[in-house]
Amino acid sequence: MSQDFIPNLANEAVLKASDPVPEGAEFVHGIDYSKPSSRNATAKDIVEGMKNMGCQASSLSKACEIIEDMRAWRGKHIDELEEHERKGQFDENGYQKTTIFMGYTSNLISSGLRDTLRFLVQHKMVDAIVSTAGGIEEDIIKCLAPTYMGSFSAPGKQLRDKGMNRIGNMVVPNDNYCKFEEWMVPLLDVMLEEQTAFAEKEQASALDAGLPFWTPSKFIDRLGKEINDESSVLYWCHKNQIPIFCPALTDGSIGDMLFFHTFRASPKQIRLDIVEDIRKINSMSMNAYKAGMLILGGGLIKHHIANACLMRNGADYAVYINTGQEFDCSDAGARPDEAVSWGKIKAEAKSVKVYSDVTLVFPLIVAATFAAK
Amino acid sequence: MSQDFIPNLANEAVLKASDPVPEGAEFVHGIDYSKPSSRNATAKDIVEGMKNMGCQASSLSKACEIIEDMRAWRGKHIDELEEHERKGQFDENGYQKTTIFMGYTSNLISSGLRDTLRFLVQHKMVDAIVSTAGGIEEDIIKCLAPTYMGSFSAPGKQLRDKGMNRIGNMVVPNDNYCKFEEWMVPLLDVMLEEQTAFAEKEQASALDAGLPFWTPSKFIDRLGKEINDESSVLYWCHKNQIPIFCPALTDGSIGDMLFFHTFRASPKQIRLDIVEDIRKINSMSMNAYKAGMLILGGGLIKHHIANACLMRNGADYAVYINTGQEFDCSDAGARPDEAVSWGKIKAEAKSVKVYSDVTLVFPLIVAATFAAK
Amino acid sequence: MSQDFIPNLANEAVLKASDPVPEGAEFVHGIDYSKPSSRNATAKDIVEGMKNMGCQASSLSKACEIIEDMRAWRGKHIDELEEHERKGQFDENGYQKTTIFMGYTSNLISSGLRDTLRFLVQHKMVDAIVSTAGGIEEDIIKCLAPTYMGSFSAPGKQLRDKGMNRIGNMVVPNDNYCKFEEWMVPLLDVMLEEQTAFAEKEQASALDAGLPFWTPSKFIDRLGKEINDESSVLYWCHKNQIPIFCPALTDGSIGDMLFFHTFRASPKQIRLDIVEDIRKINSMSMNAYKAGMLILGGGLIKHHIANACLMRNGADYAVYINTGQEFDCSDAGARPDEAVSWGKIKAEAKSVKVYSDVTLVFPLIVAATFAAK
Amino acid sequence: MSQDFIPNLANEAVLKASDPVPEGAEFVHGIDYSKPSSRNATAKDIVEGMKNMGCQASSLSKACEIIEDMRAWRGKHIDELEEHERKGQFDENGYQKTTIFMGYTSNLISSGLRDTLRFLVQHKMVDAIVSTAGGIEEDIIKCLAPTYMGSFSAPGKQLRDKGMNRIGNMVVPNDNYCKFEEWMVPLLDVMLEEQTAFAEKEQASALDAGLPFWTPSKFIDRLGKEINDESSVLYWCHKNQIPIFCPALTDGSIGDMLFFHTFRASPKQIRLDIVEDIRKINSMSMNAYKAGMLILGGGLIKHHIANACLMRNGADYAVYINTGQEFDCSDAGARPDEAVSWGKIKAEAKSVKVYSDVTLVFPLIVAATFAAK
Repeated sequence: MSQDFIPNLANEAVLKASDPVPEGAEFVHGIDYSKPSSRNATAKDIVEGMKNMGCQASSLSKACEIIEDMRAWRGKHIDELEEHERKGQFDENGYQKTTIFMGYTSNLISSGLRDTLRFLVQHKMVDAIVSTAGGIEEDIIKCLAPTYMGSFSAPGKQLRDKGMNRIGNMVVPNDNYCKFEEWMVPLLDVMLEEQTAFAEKEQASALDAGLPFWTPSKFIDRLGKEINDESSVLYWCHKNQIPIFCPALTDGSIGDMLFFHTFRASPKQIRLDIVEDIRKINSMSMNAYKAGMLILGGGLIKHHIANACLMRNGADYAVYINTGQEFDCSDAGARPDEAVSWGKIKAEAKSVKVYSDVTLVFPLIVAATFAAK
Repeated sequence: MSQDFIPNLANEAVLKASDPVPEGAEFVHGIDYSKPSSRNATAKDIVEGMKNMGCQASSLSKACEIIEDMRAWRGKHIDELEEHERKGQFDENGYQKTTIFMGYTSNLISSGLRDTLRFLVQHKMVDAIVSTAGGIEEDIIKCLAPTYMGSFSAPGKQLRDKGMNRIGNMVVPNDNYCKFEEWMVPLLDVMLEEQTAFAEKEQASALDAGLPFWTPSKFIDRLGKEINDESSVLYWCHKNQIPIFCPALTDGSIGDMLFFHTFRASPKQIRLDIVEDIRKINSMSMNAYKAGMLILGGGLIKHHIANACLMRNGADYAVYINTGQEFDCSDAGARPDEAVSWGKIKAEAKSVKVYSDVTLVFPLIVAATFAAK
Repeated sequence: MSQDFIPNLANEAVLKASDPVPEGAEFVHGIDYSKPSSRNATAKDIVEGMKNMGCQASSLSKACEIIEDMRAWRGKHIDELEEHERKGQFDENGYQKTTIFMGYTSNLISSGLRDTLRFLVQHKMVDAIVSTAGGIEEDIIKCLAPTYMGSFSAPGKQLRDKGMNRIGNMVVPNDNYCKFEEWMVPLLDVMLEEQTAFAEKEQASALDAGLPFWTPSKFIDRLGKEINDESSVLYWCHKNQIPIFCPALTDGSIGDMLFFHTFRASPKQIRLDIVEDIRKINSMSMNAYKAGMLILGGGLIKHHIANACLMRNGADYAVYINTGQEFDCSDAGARPDEAVSWGKIKAEAKSVKVYSDVTLVFPLIVAATFAAK
Repeated sequence: MSQDFIPNLANEAVLKASDPVPEGAEFVHGIDYSKPSSRNATAKDIVEGMKNMGCQASSLSKACEIIEDMRAWRGKHIDELEEHERKGQFDENGYQKTTIFMGYTSNLISSGLRDTLRFLVQHKMVDAIVSTAGGIEEDIIKCLAPTYMGSFSAPGKQLRDKGMNRIGNMVVPNDNYCKFEEWMVPLLDVMLEEQTAFAEKEQASALDAGLPFWTPSKFIDRLGKEINDESSVLYWCHKNQIPIFCPALTDGSIGDMLFFHTFRASPKQIRLDIVEDIRKINSMSMNAYKAGMLILGGGLIKHHIANACLMRNGADYAVYINTGQEFDCSDAGARPDEAVSWGKIKAEAKSVKVYSDVTLVFPLIVAATFAAK
């Protein structure tokens, strides 16, 4: 044997024997292209082939498994439950199912993934949404005028001179926001009137009462109702009573419009209360029989859903898809296991993080899960 | 010459002549360690030595330059201004100066950088702050009990069993949140009483009136007043009348406390209005003589300041420090030039992005700028 | 109009009119799930639906277009060419076609993507390969024993104690390397004999002559021949005369074996010359009628192919897929446009970078291109 | 207590009691700006202040500690050792010290950090270097003509038209490479002559003998000797007998020159053997009394040093600084703990990874360690 010839130190380090591989350990392997199904494969074929591929391919495949699991879970029939237990989600046959909280960032509504998100809410495949202001207003604005393909390297000054706003490799003409303003102003007038009428009716107790004192989720629901457009995520959420939470609703064009409106309506002013909404989303979490998190992006939308799931001592399923990294200790980049330490995801939950721009993987994931068959 | 011997195609491609270098082009060079100042150099020495180092070293150096520029700018004396023009920031001698908007994410308050941020507000070096809920509450909580060093790889389940919440490589015992709850509950009771008293006095018009109807910035200011602790960012902001904006204030432990309080106080309920705050921050931007953005992290805190600066047709100075990337079209990862296209940063503004975890570079930056001399 | 009520400065900034959108500008849109093909869609359906989705989805779709373009290009028939012009690649009918240089990093051979890479060389879909040492040896080792699925968070010390080597979320038992050593030692003996015999025959001119003086590409070709296993990338490259370049072939387990062999064979020693290989790859580039780059990962494999393409004044097609970022000025993270400045990609070439772990997107890309029907 | 008022489930989850914090747990805290030393602090002050700051600040501080530890270690006096044990590094007083392997990527030599790297080798602060081709040739080229500051967004086509090659935010005029070619050609002629003379002298056994049969490390040493310029890293490495390893030396401009030279010298050809170098670096590792890794960047330079350290069953100290991420299973992005599983870093070694562009942090690190005092 060659070992005699080589230095002992290196020999022992390099040729260290290994313990037997544990039973059930799975081989890394890939797609078998000798199968006809590997040629121009379907989404399901590809995702199945990625299962034991290692790296992020395995994470993507696991994300699909978890999505299918959270969708498939069924509990008791509604008739078996006491009245006060009937607060979560049920399927069309009356069986308990998972409450799915989906969060998405603004850029995804700007992107063509909006059509996919709309598909999910149109068919009631998720139960609550959390987004940021852009994720709300761009959905409405797209009903008024399109967003265009652009380039990451288009110079900002040239774009500003032409009134073209860049979002990565997309462009939104500023006229779109002018159209949005025209659409919003009369609506804000009406909403203020309703608020005023309500306050006059309720007087001092208006602050303690419910509708139509505005919260972000009520405001967004009204936008969905008014836009009345089947291409809209907000429209279908209104239609299907899927609440959309957005505590920082003023952080975007809607905020600009509300700001302008404070001058127009002065001294009257629309108010958006965020306390009622935290009660609403937390209650949904506590009432859920099982809770699933589907996090598309990072930042507030990720934390808000996770925090709501703390109220139930943790989500039962969690899928994160984003480009955040943990090294800067941001919540945006935190792995599911950090949420476990907080009680936001159950220790025994199924969870995965896919490190990716959402648009790269979500079309494949949706095709292989929500839109399969 | 060797050219005769080698293939023409490759020769011409490889040995293509170049145009003369433009006059004034700067050499890439580094730190001259023959200078005594390069030995255990001061912050200013290092930053100066990074100026023409290329890569992110040059970006860090430029960030320091821009910070110094935004701090140094002076305009007219207040006596030269009409009454209605006297709405921006002035130095101690009565000269117009830049309004500096600083945004920071929650993790930075969890980190030891909190002491640096406190230093900046203690000495009135910034004029407005935007943060997320964790960036508010962790400042208060740290007055009640410390955060500890931990490890990125500590398993979530073990931590949860011990009640230890992980934030990257830091750990917060859950008891800290219990202490926070004990501190908050009586305060929330008082705040609700004030709201009720106010509503009873103002009746129907309460929604259109000002204090003490709560907004996030008023709520935060009150926390700073009540904590009365010189180690606190909020304390000094209260003291120095530096507003802290946080439209999604409910997205964290404060939200948990407010949620619990809705049960405790039912049917009464504290309300947090975000419309008044958007008017407040936007007005600050419009009133600023010059506006500077100092963005530490990504997500909401970045967008919110940039959006406010749109109200003045763009910031005059902008420094971004974060780990976001533009390829996913997120606002978090967008370069300053994307904000130029929106009118959020002026085309002629000085701007830079430093691609880094903030804690890696901000100590050096602050030592070389705000805390120099 | 509401404009009267709002401050002019903000009004003009926010509601700035935009120029007309240029003709031909494409709408951002997504997948139309009302089409039956969107349900469990095929790879081609999904990729087509991503074309105008924005963000990286559009980049992935463009990558597929470029791959199809580089594969589809045909030039003159071989009979139309002079003898000295017949040095590039031809299709089975004798028409000029693109020379495709594919680079992949070691981790991809460790992953299940190896089966996909093997498929490409088995069917002569690429013409030259550049990889790093691990990308060579792990292909052989996998013929001797499998790699297993593991976990990113498995502690290193525990793994070392068991002799389990971690590669991300995969694990290679150290016994696999012992098996590799057993397989390599007799082969190295033979290769050294051949070198010695050759040197004795050629004497002083041995260094200036060709085979069997070893170069990395010849060494790798021999491994492919000896392993004689249809699951192997190297086997098919040998079979199909697809050269594999790996200038740093000693940087891994093969290097360990060669190191050990220097003791075993002392004072004789196998020599691996890298100059002959640089001539070989550069000549392929110069002889190519069109050149396409397919870069899977970063580092040496990316630079080496790009540098070879400089010899022809630039590649005609370039697809980069990796997670590198440009901010650190690394070549690994450089965008295709940086290579344009060097003459490594033609200014008029079609190029794209997909910011992604390769395993996330290459299965879909291959299914929609190389493996589509 | 408020707990009576709130839902039990949420209450218990949110207000879960925590175990006592272990003794010795360290508080997260930052820089105390009330100390005069915090004003325009020195490198050491800043690094000390970052120790318990959390996030990457703590990693940077730990990197400095490990560097100081690896530099400070001393073993036996040379007189206490047998002759065959006297193969590692000794300090000026004859005591054993750590063998420090430093790897850096090409971009760092392009950057102004070259001056820092030169400082380290000039003062014999490291013992072996691994780099890539650009990390070798750009050092020489900078002795012939400067590199200039540029911009990440300068368009590639415009630059190519002017013969300006972009490296991130730096630019190298192509004339610099022409100057390099002029400098290299006569040198290559001489080196080939030496090779030929040697081969003629040694005849068949030339391949088994040593100098002047070329290896990358000998070739690089010769470049350092010939350039004879005190600004050069290679010059000082030659002077101080610090070997520079670069197995893929042909992957860059030197490769272009060698390629051209094969035509010029045909049928003679310079040969670069990489087997002798793997023996050389592995031997250095085995002979080291303690081994320290200082990894600046990723890719080959990282793996090559780690692999050499496997020969001694692991490095004793390891500092990684780079921007790579582990999620794609690349070695470039692997954490030190992955190297522990391979035996490349000892389980009990001190190790850390700083997630950063090297130029952002290395100036501070060097100022606080190698260049302190």
